[in-house]
Amino acid sequence: MGQTIYFRSQPRIAAVSTIAGKKECEGIIGRYVETALEDDMFGESTFEKAECKMLSHVIDGAIVNGGKKREEIDLIVSGDLLNQIISASFAARDYSVPFLGVYGACSTMAESLAVAAAFADGGFAHNIVVATGSHFASAERQYRYPLELGTTRPPQAQWTVTGAGAALVTEGGDGVRITSATLGKVVDYGITDVNNMGAAMAPAAADTILAHFRETGLEPSHYDLIVTGDLGALGSRILKDLTWEKGLDISNNHVDCGEIIYKVIEDEFQGGSGAGCSAVVLNSYLYSKMMTGGIRRILFAATGALLSTVSSGQGESIPCIAHAVVLER
Amino acid sequence: MGQTIYFRSQPRIAAVSTIAGKKECEGIIGRYVETALEDDMFGESTFEKAECKMLSHVIDGAIVNGGKKREEIDLIVSGDLLNQIISASFAARDYSVPFLGVYGACSTMAESLAVAAAFADGGFAHNIVVATGSHFASAERQYRYPLELGTTRPPQAQWTVTGAGAALVTEGGDGVRITSATLGKVVDYGITDVNNMGAAMAPAAADTILAHFRETGLEPSHYDLIVTGDLGALGSRILKDLTWEKGLDISNNHVDCGEIIYKVIEDEFQGGSGAGCSAVVLNSYLYSKMMTGGIRRILFAATGALLSTVSSGQGESIPCIAHAVVLER
Repeated sequence: MGQTIYFRSQPRIAAVSTIAGKKECEGIIGRYVETALEDDMFGESTFEKAECKMLSHVIDGAIVNGGKKREEIDLIVSGDLLNQIISASFAARDYSVPFLGVYGACSTMAESLAVAAAFADGGFAHNIVVATGSHFASAERQYRYPLELGTTRPPQAQWTVTGAGAALVTEGGDGVRITSATLGKVVDYGITDVNNMGAAMAPAAADTILAHFRETGLEPSHYDLIVTGDLGALGSRILKDLTWEKGLDISNNHVDCGEIIYKVIEDEFQGGSGAGCSAVVLNSYLYSKMMTGGIRRILFAATGALLSTVSSGQGESIPCIAHAVVLER
Repeated sequence: MGQTIYFRSQPRIAAVSTIAGKKECEGIIGRYVETALEDDMFGESTFEKAECKMLSHVIDGAIVNGGKKREEIDLIVSGDLLNQIISASFAARDYSVPFLGVYGACSTMAESLAVAAAFADGGFAHNIVVATGSHFASAERQYRYPLELGTTRPPQAQWTVTGAGAALVTEGGDGVRITSATLGKVVDYGITDVNNMGAAMAPAAADTILAHFRETGLEPSHYDLIVTGDLGALGSRILKDLTWEKGLDISNNHVDCGEIIYKVIEDEFQGGSGAGCSAVVLNSYLYSKMMTGGIRRILFAATGALLSTVSSGQGESIPCIAHAVVLER
C-alpha cells in the first residue's frame, strides 16, 4: 500500500516546547526557542543527565503550553541518540504515563510524530507528547572522541545540536494539522565515513521525498517548505542532486534544519546535526512561522544515520532512514 | 483514557518464525523452534553480525510462512538490545519496506506487537512484520564483561537468550487475534544491581498487569496463561508477591518465558533473558499451543530494563517497563 499513510482526523500539534544551548540560540532559532540555556550542563553533573533534563523540560513545557495536566496525557513517544535511549527512558520515568520508546537516530522527531498521529487518528490516544533531543558533549563522547582530546574536525563534519523539542499531539483543536506521513525505508549507499553524515543520509532523504511525491501525485510547489532534518550544507546539495536526477526539482523550497541552525555555519563546517537539530528548529522557528508567519504547508523529512560505533568498527557502512510528515495550517 | 487500547478489527498474528541457539533448543522450545542453530556464530565473523542475521532469518521466515512476498509487506517494526539497535536497522536494510525502529529492551516483542496492531487496526498497513532477538555473546560484550574474562556470574543473574522471533501481523485472516494492549509506564523501584534484572523488572510487570485487570475488569482466570517475558525465577516470585499484595492472585496461571526456556534453569541461575527470550518462546512454543494445543487466551506482558552501561556507571538505578498484549484464538 505504499509508504504514505493518511490521517483522516488530521491530528493537531496543539503546543510545542523547545530548549537549546547558548551556541544554538545565537542563530536563527534564538528568538523562537522557549528556553535558552546559559550553561549546557543545565545544572547537572554529567552531559547525559543534562540531556535527559532537557527532554523532561520540553515534555513539561509542551504539556503546560497545551493547557493540559500530566494526568491528561495518554502516551509519550520518545527516543534519542544515546545507547539504550536513556535520555528518553529516564525522562519518561518521571511521568505516570504510558511510554513507547522509539529509535530513529536523528529522524526521531518525524518518526515520533508519525507514530503519534497514527495512534491519535486510530483513536488509541487523545493527547500524546512526542519529544527528542541531543547534546553535543554526550554525542561526542559516545560516537566520537572525548572532548578533552581536542580532536580536529574534518571539513565534512557537522556539530551535534544541544537542544530538545517536544510537541503535544492531540485529536482535534487548534494548531498545526498532521495530515499524512511517508514512512522511510532503510537506505545504504555504502558510505563509511562516520564524519560525513550528510552524504550518508542524503540518499535516504531522497528516497522518502521521491516516494512522497510519487505516491501523492503532488508537486514540490505544493509545499511552502520541504524541510530536511540535519543533512547539513553538503548533504543538502547531494539531496538536491539526487532528486533532480530523478526528475524532481526541490531546490526552490528546500531548507535543511542543520544548514540553517547555526549563525555562521562555516564555524561548524556543514552545520548542525543530532536528533535535537530538527526537533528544535521544527518546534520553535518553523512552528511559529506556521502559526503566525504565513507558512501553510511543510513536508518535514527528518533523516537518521543508523550506525553505531560497533557497526562502524566492524567495517559496516552507514544505513540511513528518513521519515516525512506533512504539516498543514 | 487509561493504558489499555482495544483493537476493533482484531489484527491477526498470521504467521511466525523463530531461530534459537543450541543451548536454547535443548529446552522446552526445542521441538517448536523453526531453525535450531548448530553454531551460535551462524556463519558470521562477529556476534553482532550473527544477531543481525538471525533477525533477517526470522523476518524472511514470517513472510514465507505467511504465504506473502516481500513486496506485500507494508511495514517492519523492530528493535533489539544493541546500541542504536543495529541488528534491527541492518536487518531492515535488506528489505525495501518502511521501517519503524523501536526500543523497549526485552519488552520489544510486546511493544512491537502493540504498535503493529495499532497500525493494522488504524488501517495504516495491511501486512506488518515485527521482529526482535538477542545474542548471548553480543549482550555480554556490550552490557557486562568480555567472555574471555570468564567472569563468575552471581546467583541472581540470568542468561541472555541467543535467538530471534518474528510475527506477521495482518488485518484479517486466520491466526491468533490481537484484541487489546496495555501500554506500560516506566517504573523504577531503585534497584541498582545490574545482575538482578528480575528484581528490577518485576515492579514494571506488576504495574502493567494490575493496570490491565483494573481497566478491563477481568479476572486472572479469564486467561489460560499470564505470560511475562524474562523475569526469571526470582523476578517471577517478586511479581507474584507484588500483585498478590494488591489483591490480584496470578499464581495459578502465570508463566515466565525466562523461567521456562532452559532445560535445567539451575545452570543459568534465574533462567533466560534478552529480547530474544520472550520473542522465541511466544513465536514458537506458545503460538503453537494457541494454534493447535487448546490454549485460547494469553496475556503476554514482556518486560524491559531500560538501563545502559553509562546510566549505571553514573549511579542511576534501573528504570523498567512492561507492555502487554492480549492474544486470543
